[in-house]
Amino acid sequence: MIIVIQCKDQVGLVASISAILAKHQLNIISMREHVDKVENMFFMRLNIDDGKDELLLENYIKEVLPPDAIVSINPKPSKKVVVMVSKEYHCLADILIRNYFGTFGATVQCVIGNHAILQGICERFDMPYYTVSHENISKPEFEEKVAAIIDQYNPDYIVLAKFMRILSPAIVAKFSMRIINIHHSFLPAFIGSNPYRQAFERGVKLIGATAHFVSDELDEGPIIAQQIIPVNHSFTAADMVQAGKEIETAVLAKALKLVFEDRVFVYKNKTVVFE
Amino acid sequence: MIIVIQCKDQVGLVASISAILAKHQLNIISMREHVDKVENMFFMRLNIDDGKDELLLENYIKEVLPPDAIVSINPKPSKKVVVMVSKEYHCLADILIRNYFGTFGATVQCVIGNHAILQGICERFDMPYYTVSHENISKPEFEEKVAAIIDQYNPDYIVLAKFMRILSPAIVAKFSMRIINIHHSFLPAFIGSNPYRQAFERGVKLIGATAHFVSDELDEGPIIAQQIIPVNHSFTAADMVQAGKEIETAVLAKALKLVFEDRVFVYKNKTVVFE
Amino acid sequence: MIIVIQCKDQVGLVASISAILAKHQLNIISMREHVDKVENMFFMRLNIDDGKDELLLENYIKEVLPPDAIVSINPKPSKKVVVMVSKEYHCLADILIRNYFGTFGATVQCVIGNHAILQGICERFDMPYYTVSHENISKPEFEEKVAAIIDQYNPDYIVLAKFMRILSPAIVAKFSMRIINIHHSFLPAFIGSNPYRQAFERGVKLIGATAHFVSDELDEGPIIAQQIIPVNHSFTAADMVQAGKEIETAVLAKALKLVFEDRVFVYKNKTVVFE
Amino acid sequence: MIIVIQCKDQVGLVASISAILAKHQLNIISMREHVDKVENMFFMRLNIDDGKDELLLENYIKEVLPPDAIVSINPKPSKKVVVMVSKEYHCLADILIRNYFGTFGATVQCVIGNHAILQGICERFDMPYYTVSHENISKPEFEEKVAAIIDQYNPDYIVLAKFMRILSPAIVAKFSMRIINIHHSFLPAFIGSNPYRQAFERGVKLIGATAHFVSDELDEGPIIAQQIIPVNHSFTAADMVQAGKEIETAVLAKALKLVFEDRVFVYKNKTVVFE
Repeated sequence: MIIVIQCKDQVGLVASISAILAKHQLNIISMREHVDKVENMFFMRLNIDDGKDELLLENYIKEVLPPDAIVSINPKPSKKVVVMVSKEYHCLADILIRNYFGTFGATVQCVIGNHAILQGICERFDMPYYTVSHENISKPEFEEKVAAIIDQYNPDYIVLAKFMRILSPAIVAKFSMRIINIHHSFLPAFIGSNPYRQAFERGVKLIGATAHFVSDELDEGPIIAQQIIPVNHSFTAADMVQAGKEIETAVLAKALKLVFEDRVFVYKNKTVVFE
Repeated sequence: MIIVIQCKDQVGLVASISAILAKHQLNIISMREHVDKVENMFFMRLNIDDGKDELLLENYIKEVLPPDAIVSINPKPSKKVVVMVSKEYHCLADILIRNYFGTFGATVQCVIGNHAILQGICERFDMPYYTVSHENISKPEFEEKVAAIIDQYNPDYIVLAKFMRILSPAIVAKFSMRIINIHHSFLPAFIGSNPYRQAFERGVKLIGATAHFVSDELDEGPIIAQQIIPVNHSFTAADMVQAGKEIETAVLAKALKLVFEDRVFVYKNKTVVFE
Repeated sequence: MIIVIQCKDQVGLVASISAILAKHQLNIISMREHVDKVENMFFMRLNIDDGKDELLLENYIKEVLPPDAIVSINPKPSKKVVVMVSKEYHCLADILIRNYFGTFGATVQCVIGNHAILQGICERFDMPYYTVSHENISKPEFEEKVAAIIDQYNPDYIVLAKFMRILSPAIVAKFSMRIINIHHSFLPAFIGSNPYRQAFERGVKLIGATAHFVSDELDEGPIIAQQIIPVNHSFTAADMVQAGKEIETAVLAKALKLVFEDRVFVYKNKTVVFE
Repeated sequence: MIIVIQCKDQVGLVASISAILAKHQLNIISMREHVDKVENMFFMRLNIDDGKDELLLENYIKEVLPPDAIVSINPKPSKKVVVMVSKEYHCLADILIRNYFGTFGATVQCVIGNHAILQGICERFDMPYYTVSHENISKPEFEEKVAAIIDQYNPDYIVLAKFMRILSPAIVAKFSMRIINIHHSFLPAFIGSNPYRQAFERGVKLIGATAHFVSDELDEGPIIAQQIIPVNHSFTAADMVQAGKEIETAVLAKALKLVFEDRVFVYKNKTVVFE
């Protein structure tokens, strides 16, 4: 059983929480705790041996915490996820494979693409695919159509698996800190479009990828995970794109695993990640 | 103030410990906890905001723990260290520099070498250097001389900074889990002498270094830290030695930092490291 | 056009080869050359702007090289590959995806498994799958059946994508340096079975994966690529297996890319890899 | 003997160069070649077994190359280097140690600091140290004093080993592509001052360091080497500074090694690095 807690910090929080667990004979397998001294915030993730009566336990814990506390016990057995894509297959295929073999840590409900290119691979996995073209249509109309599909599924998270359109504040606000994007650069370097072209022109020796929650500011949301790979003078911009795909796939997979295992807390445009 | 605790696991340990801290109005800045389910052992490292009266607190905490518990509060302001070397300078020089600028996290008391080669660099830092040659002398005699020097200084740790002789069980037992060695391979690959030659002949694509506590079994003690660097066909065995030196220096520095900050627990030939 | 050359070293090889290219107005885009001074061997990979009349060019080049020279020009447009598996899906699925989207750099002809578990995923990609159980059958009989299937396809390479049986010398000899295996450890550490269990018990801080050509000695063939990921005390042996899968997939993909792009030379149980 | 060549690309360059080497019975141990197809430039680094009469050979090679070709044979036995510092010791100390033990690949002539703090460590190595305060003095005056000291030594390279003042275009132009700086971020992220504070506020999961040649644009010169280390939510800005120092030291050391071994070519704000 996983318990995640986020609230204002105060003396005695660990004592209060662990006293309740001990009282119910619950053994702590692992505990991660972080206090943000600047923001005076307390974050905790507990892995408990066992635990019936989750609702009761949640109430007991809430009783000893400040009123603003967020407590989540044994988060839902499987998160539901809608994936959005454009043309590139690498992140989507990785997700479909893990979903198919039951190792994704969540359940993919459907895939929405602004192109039809990736419909074929989804069909091979009997995965519903919706093509919503962004052409000959206004942005609000496009997003309305997308939102209508999402609403059917009521997902816990939306994963932008190389979805190359910028979402408007309305849709971002609706799924606040529940939209996860993979950006094809080592943020905050190379914000915006065509980062590999920018990286090539700058002559960098490493390129990276960043998985982050989406906020209203382009590529400015809280970062979940980042990784890099070395490049050199022999890489064309196209080679960098190619090499970047491997790292994009890996970083997005890692970030999603962390999120689905309730290891990621968001606060003030930053994340606390208990790896 | 740092508190480290190691004991048999049982339900309620965290509650008991944190209750005492709360009672004394001590705020937990960060807490790391690990339970080894196989060995049924509990490990904890606490960083506390403040704390007078350490001895009293230690007794309070011990009262609520099983009798075998090891509790150490605010470990000594600066650990004392004796460094042993042979001919290679890279690890020693890194230690001398950090020691000189006060960023080593411990105090180097003296250096003992079985060659005189590194005396010069020690003199430049006014660091006592003892040459104890292993030539024309039995191993027990050699170690007796070394032990006599060490005894003068009564160090907390002995660091083998590329000391290329194998210590006998007697001296290892005397400083059990207080001797730290840097081995020039990614253990357990290439145990024993000349690991880079072995690595070269095997045609590996990565070489590594391992910092570990010394036990009676050659290169078999508990591992603290490991790192690797890529190599390729263009590396001669000598090039690998050269490249390896950079990683040896880095790994030993990292391992010592972890040990000096009381982040390393040893149990049953393994370590728990709260990085 | 790619030209790969491997022969005994002698003065003037580069001059002779490049003179022929210049004579035919062929521009060298990139050239990689390595001389193994110990073995007195010369290795070269050339990327040439263009090139009609490959056979003629091959003969021209051979004329200026020692008689034992291996010259291969513009190696076959697409290598053919048979994949062998047991129960684990991660490496196979990655290969199937790349093959499906045409980015594998080779063409998968069929998959052979000693279990039926992975038949389903192959069917989704219309990939022929042959189950050849190793149970209730002698090893020679098992390998005879496997060889019969392979013979139908006449592949350039056999990829052991987590195939957990050891092949006998007969079959290894038949496909000498054309069978590529992914071993789930950082060789030569943890040779043989259950390397993650071994790694867990040794308490290592990094685990790795090794892609190598298969030779008669278990896990002793020439290494193509290796990678590692950090682990710590919180990893059970099962967690290590899980973490290892990510790196196994990545290392095998990288090694296969290198092989299919004719960047890997084998000589005396080592590889020269022009990345 | 090392030969480095940089010129406009044309068909037959390798043939012409290698023919001359063959004619003089010079054996090529290793050869690295790169053609920048966008800029139509040719770069080559040759490692030759032996070579008397370098001047003659240089002329022979130049004869077969385009008139603008840069050819440098067996570059000077030891490069001369002036190091500039401010207050931080880590890069300087690493350089002094390598210089002392003869493994720096160049000779440090003197150290210039805008503070006196690092005079002590230099004195311990009998290294001339010049304090040139930037206080109560105009920037041109400051740089005039610095330039006067540098002129005494006529160095091949100036290494900014955490020198925290921006040099004016005049002095940068004078030592064009001969001033090497270590920047404490993964450029182009966090250009300018206090990059670790910026990194902390952005909540990044990796921090980096960049060694680059200095151009007139702040932190915009050609990049030689970059590296990163992981950080997480538990790092304060001060912790990031501390962690960054290790990587800064390593990256600067690596970049200098590459430069001193004539492995780095500069062209159009990028580098070609034959590692």
